[in-house]
Amino acid sequence: MAALEAALAFARHQHAAFVNDLSEFVRFPSVSAQPGHAADVARCATWLAAHLSAIGLQRVRVIKTRGHPVVIGTWLNAPGKPVLLLYGHYDVQPADPPDEWRDPPFAGVVRDGHLYGRGSSDDKGQVLAHIKAIQCYLKTSAALPVNVVCVVEGEEEIGSRHLPAVLREGAIHADAAVVSDMPMASADQPAITLGMRGALSFEVEIRGPRRDLHSGLFGGAVLNPAHVLCRLVAGLEDANGVVSAAGFYDGVRERSRAERAQIAADGPTDVQIAEAAGVKRLWGDPRFSTYERTTIRPALIVNGLTAGYQQAGSKAIIPSRATAKVSVRLAVDQDPRAVAEALSRHLRTRCPPQVRLRLRWQSGARAAEISGSHPLVRLAVAACRASFGQCPALLHCGGTIPIVDVLQRQMGIPVLMLGFAHPDDGAHAPNERFSLSTFTRAIATSVHLLALMGGTEIPEGCL
Amino acid sequence: MAALEAALAFARHQHAAFVNDLSEFVRFPSVSAQPGHAADVARCATWLAAHLSAIGLQRVRVIKTRGHPVVIGTWLNAPGKPVLLLYGHYDVQPADPPDEWRDPPFAGVVRDGHLYGRGSSDDKGQVLAHIKAIQCYLKTSAALPVNVVCVVEGEEEIGSRHLPAVLREGAIHADAAVVSDMPMASADQPAITLGMRGALSFEVEIRGPRRDLHSGLFGGAVLNPAHVLCRLVAGLEDANGVVSAAGFYDGVRERSRAERAQIAADGPTDVQIAEAAGVKRLWGDPRFSTYERTTIRPALIVNGLTAGYQQAGSKAIIPSRATAKVSVRLAVDQDPRAVAEALSRHLRTRCPPQVRLRLRWQSGARAAEISGSHPLVRLAVAACRASFGQCPALLHCGGTIPIVDVLQRQMGIPVLMLGFAHPDDGAHAPNERFSLSTFTRAIATSVHLLALMGGTEIPEGCL
Repeated sequence: MAALEAALAFARHQHAAFVNDLSEFVRFPSVSAQPGHAADVARCATWLAAHLSAIGLQRVRVIKTRGHPVVIGTWLNAPGKPVLLLYGHYDVQPADPPDEWRDPPFAGVVRDGHLYGRGSSDDKGQVLAHIKAIQCYLKTSAALPVNVVCVVEGEEEIGSRHLPAVLREGAIHADAAVVSDMPMASADQPAITLGMRGALSFEVEIRGPRRDLHSGLFGGAVLNPAHVLCRLVAGLEDANGVVSAAGFYDGVRERSRAERAQIAADGPTDVQIAEAAGVKRLWGDPRFSTYERTTIRPALIVNGLTAGYQQAGSKAIIPSRATAKVSVRLAVDQDPRAVAEALSRHLRTRCPPQVRLRLRWQSGARAAEISGSHPLVRLAVAACRASFGQCPALLHCGGTIPIVDVLQRQMGIPVLMLGFAHPDDGAHAPNERFSLSTFTRAIATSVHLLALMGGTEIPEGCL
Repeated sequence: MAALEAALAFARHQHAAFVNDLSEFVRFPSVSAQPGHAADVARCATWLAAHLSAIGLQRVRVIKTRGHPVVIGTWLNAPGKPVLLLYGHYDVQPADPPDEWRDPPFAGVVRDGHLYGRGSSDDKGQVLAHIKAIQCYLKTSAALPVNVVCVVEGEEEIGSRHLPAVLREGAIHADAAVVSDMPMASADQPAITLGMRGALSFEVEIRGPRRDLHSGLFGGAVLNPAHVLCRLVAGLEDANGVVSAAGFYDGVRERSRAERAQIAADGPTDVQIAEAAGVKRLWGDPRFSTYERTTIRPALIVNGLTAGYQQAGSKAIIPSRATAKVSVRLAVDQDPRAVAEALSRHLRTRCPPQVRLRLRWQSGARAAEISGSHPLVRLAVAACRASFGQCPALLHCGGTIPIVDVLQRQMGIPVLMLGFAHPDDGAHAPNERFSLSTFTRAIATSVHLLALMGGTEIPEGCL
């Protein structure tokens, strides 16, 4: 246990330096969705690769794709030990609306025990915790308890389109994977995520007249694309959020009474969910609990609407086109392609002949799930107990990490989903932040997990 | 008739100079709706006042309001003759989307017999035609056949809010008014507008969570303001555009069979309306003709939609708010206040309790109508015949000029609506233009109209 203790002690001493590293990481505006930030994404990848080399990882590569690069670093000098793939992403969500940020979104400001900035929690702080754990071992013992392959991609927020090919063509092999890109149960209690939803994004565009028309001269004579868009979007689901498209729910896994009871026991209460969302009243299909609705049931969400005049005052036009950005969260066993077809049929059938409907499908990922009794989960429970002083919650999560399904199905390995984001960190929202005390404990968790993975015996856990 | 002939000859000689004046007028980006253009609106008013003084109008004033100024100039040296109020506006619609313009929208470029630019047709070209007619008389005869008061406002596109008070407090008196801010029947046939619709604009805002939420974590648990907006907007009318709000149609004037037949005979065909709109298929309430739907029937139009993420790619959020800009065109005898109440009740009743609804009412104006047998209309018919070589069409128009109702009801005078815009000039759309041959004929029409107004006898017309 000397190596473990030395690594933990190093982590305690280096706290300030590690926070500086995180701040530097957050200061890259590596927004993968916005073409204008492509150079920033590339600079962030270069910085990360240099960082992985500096801490002692080997064969560090920045692998170019048709999109944003993947950064890979390995340490494979523990013969006979398993190979653990550590997955994370260095790309971030867009930072708009900019005027709702207290600090500039890419300043990496430390205040009140948190580091603020877009990507601080999702996912730079989480992935850096594992990298720092590796650094702690390599600086103190010049060795790791297990073999590791760090895979940090730049396209998670836009669907991880190129990573599967990189893993395949790079002949990346591993025995298990850890993905840390999800929330804890609370600010103090860590969580292991047993399931995540899949996702599917698309844009609905309605085109009408070739140009905007004067609404006085033509109002009543020409079908308004903005009105059609509202009608089609409103018609996608009922007032409770139950999707109306025939076939949409095909394949959604039915849960047994016992399974639902276990999920309910493990998950947050309605009050906790409402608090995390900052809303007074929740909403949704009354046949399922709020927690079920956000985790094991699919949901359709309008992410954006754009049509016509959007500035101050009014403008008397019938807009020539209108668009909605929509995404769907998929339940386990839902096929993204079948869901896309169901929605497409629904929309095309309902689009009136005076306008043209165009659908642009952007990404699709299946949901993922691991059993709570899997050995990997049991090791992680023990690691969390050692670092946080309490057992992790076993959660289902409504978010999507397409790569989890890729790792499980393409590489055929179990995936541990171990998250360090607080529910109120504001992932995807303005003023995103990451708790620095959680950063410290996440590093310790990773130090313990690496040790446990390298051991032969599974310690007594909470399970 | 010497003065008339001299004025017409002067107009012919000065054609190039008059086009230059119009180009200069169009080059002011006098966008009244956008606060950023307030200084441009003011500069345009100053230029216009200087121009009115230069052509010989008297007591020219730029009258400040809480919004944009009104420019007034008079010539009252024809004792015993009627006072004619010439109304127009120097403010213009916003010029977005800027990338759909072939030329910069405020360049005032002449090409293919047209002057291109935002406001060229609506309304700078039309109001300048009357000003040029006055110039023709004053330069050749140093007198006008009638007394005139030119009133050119800067808030027509945002509801003419301050003009009524300016007219009242300025003790402006007149015997009749001419408003030129509407379309011709075709590129060759002028038109007198017998009726215009009223208007009412509002913004619907739906507010949900305090901040944008991660759509994976909360999709299914928190009601989406963008979805509510779509549902409420879609629910405002049926698929044919029949408004669903109870009480909306209260007071709409019923037309006799004879009246509808006359309107149908005078108005454009469906093919002509579709061509002017640039669409293949028309749309609307099948109980009325397309022409009726755009003129004597009310219509509800979504002018803009804004919610959440609008840039490239996708962003996984539940937006915290969503807004729609909506306008209503009102039929004769519809009360804007009652319509606002009906729509407000409809929306409030249907807004679910998880979100907040906010309505911002922006402007309201009643519809206006004049009889086709009114003497003022008969004089204008004769003036058109003299200048265009054919009788004007007698039209109903779907647009709104709030000031017509103000002039009729507040000042108690008849209002002649005599338009010079071509149906395909692109008012309110990119690449707006004004035909220069129509500019010439509009000046001649005004020259004739002033002469006829100054005479005692109504000549044989087309009626």
